[in-house]
Amino acid sequence: MDQILSTDLHGRVGYINLPKGKVLTPTLLPVVSPKENIFTPTELYNEYNFNLIITSAYLFYKRYGIPDGSLTIHDILKFPGNVMMDSGAYQILLYGDVDIAPIKSLEIQANLKTDIGVILDVPISSEDSHSIAKKKTLRTLERVNDALDFINSHRDIIWTLPIQGGKNLDLLQFYIERITSQNLHRYFGLFALGSVAPLMSQYDYLNLFSMIYHTRNLLPHNVPLHLFGAGHPMIFPFIVALGCDMFDSAAYILFAKEGRYITSNATYKLESLSEFPCNCPVCLKWTPKELYNADKNTIIENLAKHNLYVSLLELKKIRLAINNGRLWELLELKAKSHPHLYKAFNYIVKNSEKLFWEELTPVTKFVGLKVFDDLSTFRPELTRASRKIHEDYTPTKNKLTIYVISGYVSPIELLSKLEKKDKLSIKFMEADVALFIPFFGLVPLELAESYPFSQFVFSGVISKEKYNEIIQSSVDFVIQKGYKLITIESLEKTELCAMIKHDLLKAFEKANYTISN
Amino acid sequence: MDQILSTDLHGRVGYINLPKGKVLTPTLLPVVSPKENIFTPTELYNEYNFNLIITSAYLFYKRYGIPDGSLTIHDILKFPGNVMMDSGAYQILLYGDVDIAPIKSLEIQANLKTDIGVILDVPISSEDSHSIAKKKTLRTLERVNDALDFINSHRDIIWTLPIQGGKNLDLLQFYIERITSQNLHRYFGLFALGSVAPLMSQYDYLNLFSMIYHTRNLLPHNVPLHLFGAGHPMIFPFIVALGCDMFDSAAYILFAKEGRYITSNATYKLESLSEFPCNCPVCLKWTPKELYNADKNTIIENLAKHNLYVSLLELKKIRLAINNGRLWELLELKAKSHPHLYKAFNYIVKNSEKLFWEELTPVTKFVGLKVFDDLSTFRPELTRASRKIHEDYTPTKNKLTIYVISGYVSPIELLSKLEKKDKLSIKFMEADVALFIPFFGLVPLELAESYPFSQFVFSGVISKEKYNEIIQSSVDFVIQKGYKLITIESLEKTELCAMIKHDLLKAFEKANYTISN
Repeated sequence: MDQILSTDLHGRVGYINLPKGKVLTPTLLPVVSPKENIFTPTELYNEYNFNLIITSAYLFYKRYGIPDGSLTIHDILKFPGNVMMDSGAYQILLYGDVDIAPIKSLEIQANLKTDIGVILDVPISSEDSHSIAKKKTLRTLERVNDALDFINSHRDIIWTLPIQGGKNLDLLQFYIERITSQNLHRYFGLFALGSVAPLMSQYDYLNLFSMIYHTRNLLPHNVPLHLFGAGHPMIFPFIVALGCDMFDSAAYILFAKEGRYITSNATYKLESLSEFPCNCPVCLKWTPKELYNADKNTIIENLAKHNLYVSLLELKKIRLAINNGRLWELLELKAKSHPHLYKAFNYIVKNSEKLFWEELTPVTKFVGLKVFDDLSTFRPELTRASRKIHEDYTPTKNKLTIYVISGYVSPIELLSKLEKKDKLSIKFMEADVALFIPFFGLVPLELAESYPFSQFVFSGVISKEKYNEIIQSSVDFVIQKGYKLITIESLEKTELCAMIKHDLLKAFEKANYTISN
Repeated sequence: MDQILSTDLHGRVGYINLPKGKVLTPTLLPVVSPKENIFTPTELYNEYNFNLIITSAYLFYKRYGIPDGSLTIHDILKFPGNVMMDSGAYQILLYGDVDIAPIKSLEIQANLKTDIGVILDVPISSEDSHSIAKKKTLRTLERVNDALDFINSHRDIIWTLPIQGGKNLDLLQFYIERITSQNLHRYFGLFALGSVAPLMSQYDYLNLFSMIYHTRNLLPHNVPLHLFGAGHPMIFPFIVALGCDMFDSAAYILFAKEGRYITSNATYKLESLSEFPCNCPVCLKWTPKELYNADKNTIIENLAKHNLYVSLLELKKIRLAINNGRLWELLELKAKSHPHLYKAFNYIVKNSEKLFWEELTPVTKFVGLKVFDDLSTFRPELTRASRKIHEDYTPTKNKLTIYVISGYVSPIELLSKLEKKDKLSIKFMEADVALFIPFFGLVPLELAESYPFSQFVFSGVISKEKYNEIIQSSVDFVIQKGYKLITIESLEKTELCAMIKHDLLKAFEKANYTISN
């Protein structure tokens, strides 16, 4: 990354400097054909403001042979922006009718003066056994080594390191460790994760997210990460939050050819739409019925245009969410697009290092935290606060007074009422004071008016299981900090607070604590 | 409703016939001023295709006095579509500088030849005590009675019955019972719920949803229900699902005047936007920065246009969701817009009659059920199936074989594999057979291949509490149906199914059941 403007989770808004102008990331690269397109790369540049697209070295070779260097890929595509060339390895795997030698593929890309090139890896298909996947991973490693000389003599191109291993996380890890231990990644200006298309088509977002998580976690962060074949905008915010800066997609065209209309959360057959749920120029001009009755090319062209508008829109929403510190909230919302996505988001949040999510999430934000349910308690703002309190908080007394609050009224508001009462301020002096917030646990008074406790909105919806876990972790905290005497009071006269106080008392009694009144 | 095209939850897509052409519902009525507008009613008709708008009899009177009948409201507004006139009662409550007699308000509306008129009710403000609210409710009832003669002599206008009581549900109920017991509602072609603006401004969606629920539940369904002042598109799908067919909003203008930009899920200050997360003509033409630097009128006009585009879009999404049987899914998604909304949706789902949601939800759908978490188990498709199985299922044997499934693979797919095995088909003959689906409980084999069990996608995310509840309800079902002997087997060789089998066994043993193998 050449410039980072803002970050949230592992997402980052920034710029990558490329020969034909800098590119705002996270970004989507529309896939174009080197020969024929539904709408032209020039249109992509002028109408949609794309200044980075991707095309295939393999498809070029298949149609035109080895280029002689007289024309650049920009001339051929009539595209004034940046061009990335994919080696086409995956197409070779799928259709396998033409094979090109790894170095030949690099020559094609270099002769065409691509801005970003990719070495020809050996992709893994969904049917590959672990041992075949391992062989392919090793062969890709060989190809990386074989390509180094060529790369070194073509430094005007930004070269991409394909990350192999597929959904076999042990192989992915093995591959990345081999690369980093030999310091091979320094030859490359971009990392790219491949072999994900089979996962997409099977809605296997769980393995997809795990792959991206491990890749981003193991590789240096200063280099942007690309995902080959990201497909549907439904998953864009997730792959960005996991650390992808770029991804390409041909879905806008492929879906259009099948008469399919993409939305932010789903896909519809054109004929199943009574109205277009979109404000893009295509959808304001046409009704579904009119378009359905148009000729085939008109249908494909307009569906593809809409599909691209809606894909681009998702990028804008993501960048805005990162800028405004609300990427987690976008994920919680979008996870409800499909149960498989919800499953995968739950899984990756609960089975990843908390530090991964905290690392690039700002320490303070200008917007209040939205707490919906159990899932929200995994927000990095809360896990970070929890760890810091557990690690850094030092008691000054051996007594602790716990004030229970509902979470519906902010600590600031509650405390402002409290301070007037002298009786309480005496208690404040005799004992350390902490608030108990139902979705979080104990917060020392000193922190109760700072972010994220200063500003949150809580729905009150939390599972009994999570609630009990929070009660128990509060008891554990008190034991760990060596408090001898506990007082529990309620800051609000509500049934809810009375119940929480009761449950806390019970948990402390079970831990043989003396409760004073 | 004059024509109903499709229904889901309590939402319905249909037409209301009005003098200037039929109106597709659910619909939004933009609020326009009788005097001056940011953009004209003519634009609303031509650019946005609105054929029903609302304006205020009170504001008309305040500016022009009593109309002489020479011009209609359509002439004055230059609007060829249908016009609804609000009595302006709420404005009188808020600003109270001009008062008009109830009958005078009806005369204004009739003289202006409005298509839909409203009698002047006595709205309830947020500060009103219960006893004041009761007095106002009674006074509105008097005004309804007083208006009947006028209404009877002006049958060319569709008259609206305002529903009063505010968030005092006892008063709301009292009011509606008084109306229905005297059969007064037959004078009116539209019901309209008022006094909700204070709830909106306090994010009190819980009381708002309760009010709509009780109103729709107590009043005849053939008459459309209007909500005065619906405001933000974030809540549109919820109020439609609860039974509102129409609502008006001035939010598009009011927010614009405060420099606020509406999205489907939130509101932003213009200056906080790095990019416009929208594809409408305004947002494709401008960048936030350019618009922010424009003159004040340009800002307001463009923000209002965008706000209206995005509000209209929400209607399209809602109608599409109803047509496609996916309104519940839209609610689950949108509930994650704001914790207060999530709280209110959880509350109303768990504290309302299941039959209310089931009544208009189709018995079979062409789309599979998406099951995300605990909340999804309240879907009417599932509560209806559960009730029917409990009420209607008659055992044919005294033994029951329970096959545990994970919910990740459809019953149809699992059963198709099963049928080949002779051993099992014998068991099928000795005992009744039911499947145990983790998010639902027991489903007799006979129903396992019919909707909604034929087609669902399950995330696997369910709370321990809900899971235990489903296990227990399965035991209760077996006891209730009088089975003597239980066999439990797992249809899938997974750890999950083994765990479920274990938990079921434990629950049956606790209920003193003999388990055979």
